[in-house]
Amino acid sequence: MELSSYITGFVDGEGSFLVSFSNRPKLSVGIEVRPSFSVSQHKRSKNIIVELCKFFQCGSVRFSQRDQNYKYETRSLKDLVDIIIPHFEKYPLRTSKKEDFNLFRQICLLMKKNKHLSAKGVKQIIRLAYQMNNLGSRRYEQEYLLRIVNKMKV
Amino acid sequence: MELSSYITGFVDGEGSFLVSFSNRPKLSVGIEVRPSFSVSQHKRSKNIIVELCKFFQCGSVRFSQRDQNYKYETRSLKDLVDIIIPHFEKYPLRTSKKEDFNLFRQICLLMKKNKHLSAKGVKQIIRLAYQMNNLGSRRYEQEYLLRIVNKMKV
Repeated sequence: MELSSYITGFVDGEGSFLVSFSNRPKLSVGIEVRPSFSVSQHKRSKNIIVELCKFFQCGSVRFSQRDQNYKYETRSLKDLVDIIIPHFEKYPLRTSKKEDFNLFRQICLLMKKNKHLSAKGVKQIIRLAYQMNNLGSRRYEQEYLLRIVNKMKV
Repeated sequence: MELSSYITGFVDGEGSFLVSFSNRPKLSVGIEVRPSFSVSQHKRSKNIIVELCKFFQCGSVRFSQRDQNYKYETRSLKDLVDIIIPHFEKYPLRTSKKEDFNLFRQICLLMKKNKHLSAKGVKQIIRLAYQMNNLGSRRYEQEYLLRIVNKMKV
């Protein structure tokens, strides 16, 4: 048994690469970009969630009373770029989630270069994020976000 | 990347070990026992479902128009006992699905010894199956099945 390959298989089924956006009028581009990698399981499989946190040596585990789920999540850009992304480069996903990961990876690397702080960069990030499959969880329409950025003086 | 460990990880998230029962008055015990191992994915991840079929060298792939899902499934007791169960003995599951697998394994091994053809054996199988987590998909109450077996003259 090779744990790294098992983890990739488990994440290919149960994991989520998400980039969410918030309306932040005080930021110069008007929009905050928040990437996150997460895996949730019913509380009866808490052990695997705790194991993910130990395996990656970053992120945190939270319990959701509402869903009776444990969720492993990494939001830190540094940890995403230094730990999470390299893992899935070395042990690649095999489902359509691979396409989400590739978009997520592009966005995190743009953020590492601070591209999310310019109007041009944040618009590029919004367009990439809206090609991802997990659109269901989005609060805003793409056009709404692009309009906010266009209104800002940057 | 080690494919066997990846497969176990993927199945730990997305796979299902199910034992279902049918009312069959013509059988001496009155009940047919049908174990199955399956993994379903939305059609955009068809490739991993086809890959599972190639990997295990048994079972089949079907498309469900209703769910827009591809499903890999092995129902043959021989393939379950000779191929599927040994894989998960060698590359063990790590979530609570492991407990389902252990019950599933016990049931398949009882069936290999033809225990499902005696009233005593089929009752033991029913009790094991109803300890599994996927009760949601069951058509019958446990007590209903046990009553059928008790009514048969075997």
